[in-house]
Amino acid sequence: MLDTDRLFPLEPKARDLARALYREVSRLPIISPHGHTDPRWYAENEPFPDPAQLFVVPDHYVFRMLCSQGIPPEKLGVARIDGGTSETDSRAIWRLFAENFYLFRGTPSRGWLEHAFEHVFGLTKRLGPDTADEFYDHIDDCLKRPEFRPRALFERFNIEVIATTEDPLDDLKWHRQIRESGWTGGRVITAYRPDPVVDPDFEGFAENVEKLGAITGLDTTNYDQYLDAHRMRRAYFRKFGATSTDHGHATARTEDLPKAEATALFEKALKGACSADEADAFRGHMLTEMARMSIEDGLVLQIHPGSFRNHSSTMMARHGRNVGFDIPVQTSYVEALRPLLNAVGMDPALSIILFTLDETVYTRELAPLAGAYPSLKLGPAWWFHDSPEGMRRYREMTTETAGFYNTVGFNDDTRAFCSIPARHDVARRVDCAYLATLVTTGRLDEDEAPEVARDLTYNLVKRAYRL
Amino acid sequence: MLDTDRLFPLEPKARDLARALYREVSRLPIISPHGHTDPRWYAENEPFPDPAQLFVVPDHYVFRMLCSQGIPPEKLGVARIDGGTSETDSRAIWRLFAENFYLFRGTPSRGWLEHAFEHVFGLTKRLGPDTADEFYDHIDDCLKRPEFRPRALFERFNIEVIATTEDPLDDLKWHRQIRESGWTGGRVITAYRPDPVVDPDFEGFAENVEKLGAITGLDTTNYDQYLDAHRMRRAYFRKFGATSTDHGHATARTEDLPKAEATALFEKALKGACSADEADAFRGHMLTEMARMSIEDGLVLQIHPGSFRNHSSTMMARHGRNVGFDIPVQTSYVEALRPLLNAVGMDPALSIILFTLDETVYTRELAPLAGAYPSLKLGPAWWFHDSPEGMRRYREMTTETAGFYNTVGFNDDTRAFCSIPARHDVARRVDCAYLATLVTTGRLDEDEAPEVARDLTYNLVKRAYRL
Amino acid sequence: MLDTDRLFPLEPKARDLARALYREVSRLPIISPHGHTDPRWYAENEPFPDPAQLFVVPDHYVFRMLCSQGIPPEKLGVARIDGGTSETDSRAIWRLFAENFYLFRGTPSRGWLEHAFEHVFGLTKRLGPDTADEFYDHIDDCLKRPEFRPRALFERFNIEVIATTEDPLDDLKWHRQIRESGWTGGRVITAYRPDPVVDPDFEGFAENVEKLGAITGLDTTNYDQYLDAHRMRRAYFRKFGATSTDHGHATARTEDLPKAEATALFEKALKGACSADEADAFRGHMLTEMARMSIEDGLVLQIHPGSFRNHSSTMMARHGRNVGFDIPVQTSYVEALRPLLNAVGMDPALSIILFTLDETVYTRELAPLAGAYPSLKLGPAWWFHDSPEGMRRYREMTTETAGFYNTVGFNDDTRAFCSIPARHDVARRVDCAYLATLVTTGRLDEDEAPEVARDLTYNLVKRAYRL
Repeated sequence: MLDTDRLFPLEPKARDLARALYREVSRLPIISPHGHTDPRWYAENEPFPDPAQLFVVPDHYVFRMLCSQGIPPEKLGVARIDGGTSETDSRAIWRLFAENFYLFRGTPSRGWLEHAFEHVFGLTKRLGPDTADEFYDHIDDCLKRPEFRPRALFERFNIEVIATTEDPLDDLKWHRQIRESGWTGGRVITAYRPDPVVDPDFEGFAENVEKLGAITGLDTTNYDQYLDAHRMRRAYFRKFGATSTDHGHATARTEDLPKAEATALFEKALKGACSADEADAFRGHMLTEMARMSIEDGLVLQIHPGSFRNHSSTMMARHGRNVGFDIPVQTSYVEALRPLLNAVGMDPALSIILFTLDETVYTRELAPLAGAYPSLKLGPAWWFHDSPEGMRRYREMTTETAGFYNTVGFNDDTRAFCSIPARHDVARRVDCAYLATLVTTGRLDEDEAPEVARDLTYNLVKRAYRL
Repeated sequence: MLDTDRLFPLEPKARDLARALYREVSRLPIISPHGHTDPRWYAENEPFPDPAQLFVVPDHYVFRMLCSQGIPPEKLGVARIDGGTSETDSRAIWRLFAENFYLFRGTPSRGWLEHAFEHVFGLTKRLGPDTADEFYDHIDDCLKRPEFRPRALFERFNIEVIATTEDPLDDLKWHRQIRESGWTGGRVITAYRPDPVVDPDFEGFAENVEKLGAITGLDTTNYDQYLDAHRMRRAYFRKFGATSTDHGHATARTEDLPKAEATALFEKALKGACSADEADAFRGHMLTEMARMSIEDGLVLQIHPGSFRNHSSTMMARHGRNVGFDIPVQTSYVEALRPLLNAVGMDPALSIILFTLDETVYTRELAPLAGAYPSLKLGPAWWFHDSPEGMRRYREMTTETAGFYNTVGFNDDTRAFCSIPARHDVARRVDCAYLATLVTTGRLDEDEAPEVARDLTYNLVKRAYRL
Repeated sequence: MLDTDRLFPLEPKARDLARALYREVSRLPIISPHGHTDPRWYAENEPFPDPAQLFVVPDHYVFRMLCSQGIPPEKLGVARIDGGTSETDSRAIWRLFAENFYLFRGTPSRGWLEHAFEHVFGLTKRLGPDTADEFYDHIDDCLKRPEFRPRALFERFNIEVIATTEDPLDDLKWHRQIRESGWTGGRVITAYRPDPVVDPDFEGFAENVEKLGAITGLDTTNYDQYLDAHRMRRAYFRKFGATSTDHGHATARTEDLPKAEATALFEKALKGACSADEADAFRGHMLTEMARMSIEDGLVLQIHPGSFRNHSSTMMARHGRNVGFDIPVQTSYVEALRPLLNAVGMDPALSIILFTLDETVYTRELAPLAGAYPSLKLGPAWWFHDSPEGMRRYREMTTETAGFYNTVGFNDDTRAFCSIPARHDVARRVDCAYLATLVTTGRLDEDEAPEVARDLTYNLVKRAYRL
């Protein structure tokens, strides 16, 4: 059974206060403005296949931990792309997972999983070799029932709005199907992630740009029309609810190049002739162009830099992308963001949400930048830092310089559907614990704390993402 | 009303001990060895004009936070240098500030302001739209009374000594006037900050060097005489109490160049012909020359590196320097300081105080360096880190390697006069909390803690700054 | 007297739990898989000379702190290598140390020293000028007694196994003597540290490689035979118990060069003709070669990067190496380790233990890498971070991503024999405090914590080092 006071401060007065603050926010609806759930789930509303397919096979947090202890991902059902075979017996996968569940001690994955086991499936024992089958049978049985289909869970999770992430070449057919289905229980929106058509290093970049032309009816090999094609697709995405764009570049570099130079780089990129530096410059320039379009159309711009993708070439060859081998690297923002900020950063119509995988920049770079520029806000603790300690450090390292009101609430950023309520719950608890500590150490008045708690949980995210 | 136990540990025994330690140090005089108050205040002893001019207009901590939320600084009275107009109605400025006071929740600015409101002006309500006028009228009324003039506040603040910061071209006339006034209530000293005449990138560098020649009667275009001019001005500053120099370079780079090379760089700098790297090298070389002069004349050398000044060119064009857009950058010290340290770093007659805006260097670089070299001491948590969390991290990340006795007490480093007692109070509370935690976790004996508390508050700063 | 609850959480329930967990592990045997004690001590079993020679003269943690306060190391008996004289009166050294013992307030050295004074020598007063002679006489008296000889202390310290560190040119005669002596009280093993014969920048590199040839009977100027010579020496070291190799490079760079290129670099290195970058590349390539040999022979590979050795050239000239002037520098692992990891990193037969002096990489690089690659494990908090705060940060910054089971227990890594039980005790206490905090905040079940505590103390280190 989960401890109802988990993640709260230990000292009794602070714990009482955290508990009271948590009561204010624990039942507020979930706003999930950025994530990677599959819109097809909500469109088709088919049952999730089985416990292993729900909790293990698609979750790189889970299988990378077992991989790190010498268990090959294919034994956990992770598909091979090189012709190798993977385990297909879901019960065998589940048992292997259960045997190794002790590896998750002290990790947020453990917390998310147990939250889902208890709150979604009513399972209060501990998963292990002896309970593996009991868990499997019970979850499998549940999944066959209508109240465990995606839309039912969506409503039960009290999700007010969720954003998925699609690229400009996506026709958004699942989003269309959701809208046309007449479902009133949930608001599912898209977000514009143009990496495949702005990143010269993306596989198939030139073809992607060509497809963008085909979709928009423009000659996207012409730089001006290429920019117009973005404008058209952004407008199309806005029809399906998009309020934001998202950019997952390797660095936070921005550029504001003269048009001739940008055009030349773009043409070079289409030929696959860019150097690594030129590709980075083009991506950086496109961030500034996207910011200009954001001023026009109001889409909020999210920057998610600093991941070294597919670090292991062995794993990339065997299993492809998104298998837990994306590793954060040192990322700097101060000089990197300056071209964009000097171009448009003082415009209060622009809203940029900055994320980081490099916690050293919180006090040094991000809080000072967001605490000065009207266009900048701080995204929440992200990915590896989406954890109790990571969230605590985030508040401790950003609040004093940037305050609460330059932050944007929580993002779950997940593909793991059942972890959504768990993740939001962790964020609410950690924020309440932080606020309780501020109050009990005389840094915030007790009567202000509930308002801040509600802002951090619900109001700031709606305002920041224009929802 | 401020919580009298603010910033103390929550656990009762640790809180009791912190309270007892704080009683030992809370009334010790303030030693303020580095800061940016205006000596003219103490010289002329004129009343501060009004609440907005005292608390809002000159304080970039305050107006940058409102700027970050889309309120243009000119609406807060911050002067335009580009011909634009700024708000001049102080009551309007104050109301705008009060309406947005909630933005400072969780920030040290909130704590400093409320400390001043309560302790200096006796105001115990919370500032907000509904209390804005009440605050304004009361403070405005106070400021007209003699006991709120600068010298009276200085004495009431229990300041034993305060240093201001002047450049070599300053004639120190306010300091002269203070001395000649016969005021016995306070010791105001200067500090030697030669950036305008050692930094080739400083605006007007060559002219500044020329003026230095005019002041000293030396041919400062000659490198030897240029160095002598520094010696003369240092001696002059020492007459007005200076015990330290201060250097605000972009990096911590030092050099110890052969004389011919230094001379050539200097001549190139006078012509404005230095590359960025050469300018950095010359600044770095001058740090070593300054260290040599410090061995001669005993001035303590302070290094404050790592700020990217005037990050927004828009703001620089509109409002000029010091408007909250100086952003910290990654700074490294280990190789950077080596030329200076190899030249003079083992000389116990030399005292260098190192500051940082990059907290990652505390455990990795600064504590190991200061814990080995006899010439090095660690300055306190600075600027963005002059906050409860910043100060806690500072102690947690420096004490284990450098101990307490390679640190130098607290600097307020402020222009905001009324924040001085508040800032020192925060430092004393955080240090007492840290010591109480060490004692209650068996890392320091209870009978030693009061002595350490007094050292951190009063003795170390006097010793380190030779006051 | 030491506080029996030292380093435990303050809140009563968490403290009780930490105490209970500590009782589970406090008396488990010490496994010391990496360190720098002198095998001669265990071979000859001669008395330690006197208190100053035991606690002050060989311990750079101790004399660097006094040096940082202006006391020249020669006054503490640290040998000059430049013909200068050093203090030889051990009582005078001890008194100087005692007078300055207050400098260690808040440092781990203070804790280690007091643990040794109390637990090894029964001294419960505080060391200071007034107790200096009493301490000296008592310790000196003890050291003459058989129960204070190295082997007796080894047994009393409850050390199950200790590794020393030797280079490939060492004949391991002390290890041989230990084995031949028939001593059954302790297991002393060696570890293979090939820096002198793999680092082109190591003093005497070419001669060292030549000696390696003489020892192995191979032509080590030939690259193939040079590699074979390593294989032979590794086999020889394994005879004396070695289960690991150790590599103390300046950076974490690895390379996997084509053979022709490696051969050419090696030949250039032998001629002393490598550039700094080429030397670094060769060292990096040799890490990959060592990893390949590890797959063959099972030795665990330790990487200890990121120390700028002998930072002060003055100190190097006066006193030589290892006098407290090795300073950590920023270190990056993600791109640096990639050549090695792409060559052999997915092989579960390979075990690499990564250390760092740059704590910023814990959450950003090391935990994500170790939480994915089967070959990687995280070494404990090292050197400057081998302290209560350092260990706490280590757990807080690695557990959430890498879990407990990608860590390897504690290393004391020390030359200071009497500090070994103290250091292991600190690690056990900090781990129990961390686990108690996880349990009381609902992140770990109470019934799991004792098992994890035993794993962190005893099981993981034995498994990771294959002991």
